Amino acid sequence: MSSEIGHSLKLSVFGQSHGRAIGMVLDGLPAGIKIDQEELYQFMSRRKPGTSRLSTQRREEDRPLFLSGLVDGVTAGSPLCAVIENTDQRSGDYAALADLPRPSHADFTARARYGERVDMRGSGHFSGRLTAPLCIAGGIAKQLLAAGDIHVGAHLLSVENESDDPFPLYPTRALFDEAAARPLPVLSEEAGARMAQAVERARAEADSVGGVIECAVIGLPAGVGSPLFDGIENRLAAALFGIPAVKGVEFGAGFGAAKMRGSAHNDPYTVENGVVRTVKNDAGGVIGGITTGMPLVVKCAMKPTPSIGQKQRTVSLSRLEPAELEIRGRHDPCVAIRAVPVIEAVAAFTILDILMEEKGYGND
Amino acid sequence: MSSEIGHSLKLSVFGQSHGRAIGMVLDGLPAGIKIDQEELYQFMSRRKPGTSRLSTQRREEDRPLFLSGLVDGVTAGSPLCAVIENTDQRSGDYAALADLPRPSHADFTARARYGERVDMRGSGHFSGRLTAPLCIAGGIAKQLLAAGDIHVGAHLLSVENESDDPFPLYPTRALFDEAAARPLPVLSEEAGARMAQAVERARAEADSVGGVIECAVIGLPAGVGSPLFDGIENRLAAALFGIPAVKGVEFGAGFGAAKMRGSAHNDPYTVENGVVRTVKNDAGGVIGGITTGMPLVVKCAMKPTPSIGQKQRTVSLSRLEPAELEIRGRHDPCVAIRAVPVIEAVAAFTILDILMEEKGYGND
Amino acid sequence: MSSEIGHSLKLSVFGQSHGRAIGMVLDGLPAGIKIDQEELYQFMSRRKPGTSRLSTQRREEDRPLFLSGLVDGVTAGSPLCAVIENTDQRSGDYAALADLPRPSHADFTARARYGERVDMRGSGHFSGRLTAPLCIAGGIAKQLLAAGDIHVGAHLLSVENESDDPFPLYPTRALFDEAAARPLPVLSEEAGARMAQAVERARAEADSVGGVIECAVIGLPAGVGSPLFDGIENRLAAALFGIPAVKGVEFGAGFGAAKMRGSAHNDPYTVENGVVRTVKNDAGGVIGGITTGMPLVVKCAMKPTPSIGQKQRTVSLSRLEPAELEIRGRHDPCVAIRAVPVIEAVAAFTILDILMEEKGYGND
Amino acid sequence: MSSEIGHSLKLSVFGQSHGRAIGMVLDGLPAGIKIDQEELYQFMSRRKPGTSRLSTQRREEDRPLFLSGLVDGVTAGSPLCAVIENTDQRSGDYAALADLPRPSHADFTARARYGERVDMRGSGHFSGRLTAPLCIAGGIAKQLLAAGDIHVGAHLLSVENESDDPFPLYPTRALFDEAAARPLPVLSEEAGARMAQAVERARAEADSVGGVIECAVIGLPAGVGSPLFDGIENRLAAALFGIPAVKGVEFGAGFGAAKMRGSAHNDPYTVENGVVRTVKNDAGGVIGGITTGMPLVVKCAMKPTPSIGQKQRTVSLSRLEPAELEIRGRHDPCVAIRAVPVIEAVAAFTILDILMEEKGYGND
Repeated sequence: MSSEIGHSLKLSVFGQSHGRAIGMVLDGLPAGIKIDQEELYQFMSRRKPGTSRLSTQRREEDRPLFLSGLVDGVTAGSPLCAVIENTDQRSGDYAALADLPRPSHADFTARARYGERVDMRGSGHFSGRLTAPLCIAGGIAKQLLAAGDIHVGAHLLSVENESDDPFPLYPTRALFDEAAARPLPVLSEEAGARMAQAVERARAEADSVGGVIECAVIGLPAGVGSPLFDGIENRLAAALFGIPAVKGVEFGAGFGAAKMRGSAHNDPYTVENGVVRTVKNDAGGVIGGITTGMPLVVKCAMKPTPSIGQKQRTVSLSRLEPAELEIRGRHDPCVAIRAVPVIEAVAAFTILDILMEEKGYGND
Repeated sequence: MSSEIGHSLKLSVFGQSHGRAIGMVLDGLPAGIKIDQEELYQFMSRRKPGTSRLSTQRREEDRPLFLSGLVDGVTAGSPLCAVIENTDQRSGDYAALADLPRPSHADFTARARYGERVDMRGSGHFSGRLTAPLCIAGGIAKQLLAAGDIHVGAHLLSVENESDDPFPLYPTRALFDEAAARPLPVLSEEAGARMAQAVERARAEADSVGGVIECAVIGLPAGVGSPLFDGIENRLAAALFGIPAVKGVEFGAGFGAAKMRGSAHNDPYTVENGVVRTVKNDAGGVIGGITTGMPLVVKCAMKPTPSIGQKQRTVSLSRLEPAELEIRGRHDPCVAIRAVPVIEAVAAFTILDILMEEKGYGND
Repeated sequence: MSSEIGHSLKLSVFGQSHGRAIGMVLDGLPAGIKIDQEELYQFMSRRKPGTSRLSTQRREEDRPLFLSGLVDGVTAGSPLCAVIENTDQRSGDYAALADLPRPSHADFTARARYGERVDMRGSGHFSGRLTAPLCIAGGIAKQLLAAGDIHVGAHLLSVENESDDPFPLYPTRALFDEAAARPLPVLSEEAGARMAQAVERARAEADSVGGVIECAVIGLPAGVGSPLFDGIENRLAAALFGIPAVKGVEFGAGFGAAKMRGSAHNDPYTVENGVVRTVKNDAGGVIGGITTGMPLVVKCAMKPTPSIGQKQRTVSLSRLEPAELEIRGRHDPCVAIRAVPVIEAVAAFTILDILMEEKGYGND
Repeated sequence: MSSEIGHSLKLSVFGQSHGRAIGMVLDGLPAGIKIDQEELYQFMSRRKPGTSRLSTQRREEDRPLFLSGLVDGVTAGSPLCAVIENTDQRSGDYAALADLPRPSHADFTARARYGERVDMRGSGHFSGRLTAPLCIAGGIAKQLLAAGDIHVGAHLLSVENESDDPFPLYPTRALFDEAAARPLPVLSEEAGARMAQAVERARAEADSVGGVIECAVIGLPAGVGSPLFDGIENRLAAALFGIPAVKGVEFGAGFGAAKMRGSAHNDPYTVENGVVRTVKNDAGGVIGGITTGMPLVVKCAMKPTPSIGQKQRTVSLSRLEPAELEIRGRHDPCVAIRAVPVIEAVAAFTILDILMEEKGYGND
């Protein structure tokens, strides 16, 4: 498959939903960095299912076990391997799916690519469960970035037709922490309540909803990145599209910029305390693949959970004829909710990787 | 910088706007493939400036000269190097910009990254002119794909607030060719007329407009791509964000999916002539990073040209104080127009690269 | 560190000598391949210590536990993770070494590179123990190659001044199996006896000896590889130098070729049963980075084990003054012996990776 | 093909022997570095043919033309493209070779890999002529390294059975310059005379000879490199095997180490002026893939030129039957001589690439 990413930091993700364990190998961290495992676990618990009616009722105890790379909680310089055992699996729920691919799930495409023997029980390696290892890597990256006063935060910008406030021009770490502490990770509690209702309505109708996540990185200096193929936008987009259900990625005004005039879209420069800034940030903190020094702002469109309780049309792959499908099992009515820390994790990993590559960040 | 991309096909792009020449090296093509140079030149002329009032009045004769890799118009197996000489340059136009960075241009970020000595005359290596070598590589990729009955086409889906028809469920090569032949690359001539007016209005007001480009790849089988970090979406997004002015990339319903319910977004499977299809294509032909066999549909948001004739606020980098800037020179009022073939080129290159990596495509 | 390798097959190795576990992630194997775990374990036991007086008396039970990627012994298409727990560690043996670097060991260089906090207990990630995960990956690669009638074998060509017979022009699988079954992996039992005596003499004198390993790959067709930077020799050499103690790599006549005339070194072509062959094989089966179809022959020079029982001169890193060092602990008097299967493993992994990249080998 | 190499510095080499031009693209150099083009040309002229009876009588004017990346002789930050036009070609000399592959040349393997249409006139992309672009990249790398007081030098250690003195424990830049200035690049003029006679004898007998090149890098600090797959030895070996005719690579004692006892091979540490050194350097300056701070010493075995004037046995590929071949044309009787600067170039490029990756070398 293609479960590796990174240049200076190299991440390899493994595991199937119903295998013995899932996990990751993260190579390239400097030696001697204290990892706060409790903070890491707190971060990971933000994506854990089973914490509210708005997410799947599966129980997963996602505490990572470090097999290598840590000695007494301090990085050893060598590759860090962490695993999470799989315990609460019910493969029976998925047995019939082998012949009846779930619409908008990878059941069909995985078989078309890897053949009949690919393990797709519980979506196999394509499962959202594989985002837990991403959160291990990203949670560690967040800690290293924070030590250099670079912070990554995200919130649920919209669910179906309900919208949160967007990030202000200068988001703060306090704002990130507040959003993360709420039942739904939003800036406006009132918006959160409306979103929760939208999710609840969908759940009650055996349906699901999509959403948009807005993520910001603050504290980045100007001058990080590169033009053409390996800049901030290329690298972040390539990584973020690795998260299941992401169908769109935009920076700053993004698709909104396509409707704007240059006179409205251009961000005028100004000087604040001797530092070059822009008076607004439609660029999302990146021009020509390189950071401007303003907050980096990226948004991800998350499709609605494809697993819904309603009857759906599909085909029998063995008989090549139409069929009906009713998915059982426990599913999130809105994957965007639990994806918020995953987006943070992937953004943090990517930014740390770029910084280490360009600046040797954290190496001394 | 980071001007290389590709796995099985390796592309390296070089040149500055005001250097002696721009060009590319493309390695990995099989030997013995006839390249239709006239067709390539016709394709490249689609991005050429100076062809209408809607684009810059600079004249560029972009006929590539092949220095290696071709013998009598047939690939030699070895890396293909093609160059285009720079002729119509007016560096004087840009002299003042060294101290006064143009808003939303890479002037400031390039200096923050590479220092004062980076060559930014005419935007240097960040110039839209560097998309000409992308079109050489992509134009060749289009020919190889077409030999296997895979076709790549694009059109201008919107300009400011004017919209073209979207691609139908099954776009055809004829449709691609029709769009390409129009003054503006659109599906609906009426929409094209409205768009042209929007561009003309902006130009008349010394302003610019953004737009959205929709690109489709037809003829791809199901089962191309990979999950997580190196699938169809990751690779296309990483490459497409390499095109100057792209600020958003989405597949299928994209950001629209975030407003949908699962019951509406899921694409039901069906069987047509013994082949598994979906009855609609909100997935944009890709699920789990892997093609479904439906047309692959990707949209790119293009920001408005940052170079506008109006007076703008900026700062003097040397004095670190506010300043005013009036950009002279000749600029496209809507970069999205000439970017249409560039999007095709980059998509074609990326798809061919993935196919060669997975299937040895074209190797025999 | 830099513990990842491979293009189509991606291998990531993790673990420290005295950490909780060592292991590897191997991504890129097709789904549906039956892995003979008993055969794999037999292969791995060839590098296991503690089996004779000629190797270290440490006991390691190196049976790999598969955490992912295998279902009922069959590849699942997803990345395969296998771990081996560390049990028989005596960190106390190594405590004093932190300040007194062992000559010709990585103690000093690892600290110079990664700082004081790098975990070097038992040589940490630099330990020869990390070759066990290489044998997991390589043992699996050997099985996939064997299914296509490509076989990889190696023998101890020399130890100190005692030499085995070289491989004949056409080595066979039977020859490989015979060598592997002997107490020392040699072609000539008589030579093996002389070598064993040389090792035993060194051991008795608290010393160690180096050796040369000759490895052959049979069954490869002509036309595998590439010129310049990514051919058979580049890839094999890059991988083989990853094995601790390898100090030289040569193909065919290798350094011997430097003493030859072209008239003697050139391998004349001939035709046998309609296939182009060479009448001798001083090229070692590779010309211009590409296989000739003759057996691929590569030799590796293994330095003598740096850990010897004799008193040695070193320095105290903290006081920056001369010091004496006496290494205790249990060490192989000749690492070349146990390295024979490791060389096979690394060669098999590399060849399979190249074949999959170029030919989609094993994918259908 | 596989004509790209490098991580932080990315090199792409293009051209065929009888194409319009050969050249290279080098990306990743910092902006603002003055390149001494006269020094570069002097360096390149060391590999130029036609300067003595000991090398081929072809005339090549190898002055590179920079198409991009340089402004007034100073790096512009963007990729640097340099080309050398091909002028003195005589394709007729090679016409018959298409059917009669030259023994130990890539004629046969290139066709087996790339098919009949691969351009092999004058050995095409496999030609030793492609080492000229390597010398452009490496010559520039040498200048950047020298600015940091890191110097790369090489000499002809042996030709057939005649040997030069090896480098002393601490080679100097003066020593490098002396060797480079001699007719044959050797340390001992007397040895050079013997070698010249050996080459002349071979030439007189329409034969060729092999040789060994010893290369050293001085000024490297301890702590550069990495263990396992991407360290100093892996990277240098992977690059050096890209030079046509290299059949073996060894570090320090190399294959000699295989005949040694540990007590003799281990390099005892000592302290000199507060710096940790070793009293001898059998490790060749690298342990565990990481530099020790001692001179880095690598040796390359060069096979004898395969093109010799004597009649040779080959086969007709079209008729699959034995044939005789008599090579005409002008060939070096000893490729090792002109390969000396090429080895330096490739070593310099690789070391600079590693330093930039790890230390951001030259970036500030």
